Amino acid sequence: MSFPSPISRRPDGRVRLLDQTQLPTEERYLDLATAEEVAEAIRSLRVRGAPLIGIAAAMGVALEAALAEAAGSDGLARVRAACALLGGTRPTAVNLSWALARMLRRAESAAGSGAGLADALRAEADAIAAEDRAMCERIGEAGAELLPDAATVCTICNAGVLATGGIGTALAPVYIAHAAGRRPRVIVPETRPLLQGSRLTAWELTRAGVPCTVIADGMIASRLRRGDVSCVIVGADRIAANGDVANKIGTYGLALAARAHGVPFYVAAPSSTVDAATPDGSRIPIEERAPDEMLAWGDRRIGPAGVAVWNPAFDVTPAALITAIITDRGIYAPAAVAGAVPAVAAEA
Amino acid sequence: MSFPSPISRRPDGRVRLLDQTQLPTEERYLDLATAEEVAEAIRSLRVRGAPLIGIAAAMGVALEAALAEAAGSDGLARVRAACALLGGTRPTAVNLSWALARMLRRAESAAGSGAGLADALRAEADAIAAEDRAMCERIGEAGAELLPDAATVCTICNAGVLATGGIGTALAPVYIAHAAGRRPRVIVPETRPLLQGSRLTAWELTRAGVPCTVIADGMIASRLRRGDVSCVIVGADRIAANGDVANKIGTYGLALAARAHGVPFYVAAPSSTVDAATPDGSRIPIEERAPDEMLAWGDRRIGPAGVAVWNPAFDVTPAALITAIITDRGIYAPAAVAGAVPAVAAEA
Repeated sequence: MSFPSPISRRPDGRVRLLDQTQLPTEERYLDLATAEEVAEAIRSLRVRGAPLIGIAAAMGVALEAALAEAAGSDGLARVRAACALLGGTRPTAVNLSWALARMLRRAESAAGSGAGLADALRAEADAIAAEDRAMCERIGEAGAELLPDAATVCTICNAGVLATGGIGTALAPVYIAHAAGRRPRVIVPETRPLLQGSRLTAWELTRAGVPCTVIADGMIASRLRRGDVSCVIVGADRIAANGDVANKIGTYGLALAARAHGVPFYVAAPSSTVDAATPDGSRIPIEERAPDEMLAWGDRRIGPAGVAVWNPAFDVTPAALITAIITDRGIYAPAAVAGAVPAVAAEA
Repeated sequence: MSFPSPISRRPDGRVRLLDQTQLPTEERYLDLATAEEVAEAIRSLRVRGAPLIGIAAAMGVALEAALAEAAGSDGLARVRAACALLGGTRPTAVNLSWALARMLRRAESAAGSGAGLADALRAEADAIAAEDRAMCERIGEAGAELLPDAATVCTICNAGVLATGGIGTALAPVYIAHAAGRRPRVIVPETRPLLQGSRLTAWELTRAGVPCTVIADGMIASRLRRGDVSCVIVGADRIAANGDVANKIGTYGLALAARAHGVPFYVAAPSSTVDAATPDGSRIPIEERAPDEMLAWGDRRIGPAGVAVWNPAFDVTPAALITAIITDRGIYAPAAVAGAVPAVAAEA
């Protein structure tokens, strides 16, 4: 890709984040020094995307261990507090709790063995990031096999470079096909209210040289009816054991439209997104966000004063509408996706 | 209703329009003196809504007849030019060409009989407006019968007071039920890109005291899945002879979601919206509007420079997804809707 990762570590140890709320007009980076700063960045969606949130949270925990070491204070207590803080930022993406559980296990094992806590947690956060990068590649390779040449892929929200530690999840097959000269193109619903489609997905695809077309979310069904969309590929914030998928609000309507027009509907996600402890989609907590996200239009109000708003950030697409789930461990029928869970995560 | 009509005639003959592009933050009225000014207001959506466009165009034609009379020039030629100008402003709403054809017939008959052209056309425009007002009432009375008490109605775009010469089409049953103390409430998808839902529908419902909740268009399917929406009622820009309906982009996806959840899907429109000359939806011209409508966000750009955009203003919902069509002449099964066409329009 022709632009730097949305997350990296500075030589001084701080976490460098691309502030995604400023895209596409400004490419501004933030250097964060504490778990609290990372938590704020997650809450305010400066960093977003289920896998990338997991990486950012892990790096936030590692920051606290380093601060404790520098201060000579109790590192494990500080790590536990950071995990609690970061775990409360957003409820839906399971990668967040997965990454934090992994950091906590590593902290406890390092503390038990007397090893250096800060070094151990920095290494664990780096491992999570490196593994995510590799998982994106494997998702891309697996998913690219499903694309015809010159495919037209419809996605929603952003499940690309800006959502992960690598080339994305839903967009990974597109990038792999593009690199192979197979000329994919992408239909990009803008994804209200926060416009991750037009602001982020269209931005990263354009920079990568992949042709794309922005549409409003209400145009999805009409666009699929035209008959030239090869498939839909979306990301996931949590996949229940039965194959139900929580993803950005609008995904469920997209799945209904895909079914109505016989368009294959794929979910692409790292295996860490599969939550074996959640039996079905009805048990996935759905975050509701502030009404202002819906009613502010630049400096202007777009609704009458005091009007009621419903603003869920995610919806659940039932397994029955999903053709297949593309993971780093292979392609699964939705009902079989629990088989993609790595043993360590399933035990956790 | 607690606010004036969005269209009226000033004592000096000029046409007074509520500039709907300024809502909900500003209630600004425009006094228009020529057909060209009316055409500009239609093109730029200062006045919109299929029935209201028809009324505005008729008033624009009457303006030209009065100007010709004052100038002592050839009124009929000027009326014909105004009809051509106004007829080219927007392609999808059939009420526009219906109203213009009616004005032209009246002009020709007045010219043939030697009657005063300006008076005749002013009277014809007023008749179109008065008939529309009455049609809205009849649609409301018919549609209100379909609503349970304390109904939750989902609509899209704006097919209310701001779209007609009366209490609206899709919203008319809601206003009738509200006036009868039957406590309806409305789910209002914001309707991107131009936000007629949050800007206009939520504004007029709030002023009328009808509770409403704004959602993003991508939330429609999730909202219908909750199971507490009584029915969907939408307006129409053109109804083909077989019952296919062109309406605001997003309507088709809403219809798919309604079908998936067993929610009745009603279209409410005056009989002038039925176009017996168009056999099915595939023959309805769909207006595509400028990319900037999608990419400008207040003063900010929300997509990368040069990105492609698809921006159709309407879509077509097939008759098979429509439970019934509510008109001023009664409630029709979609396949039977051609029976709602008044004889004079069918002959035209």
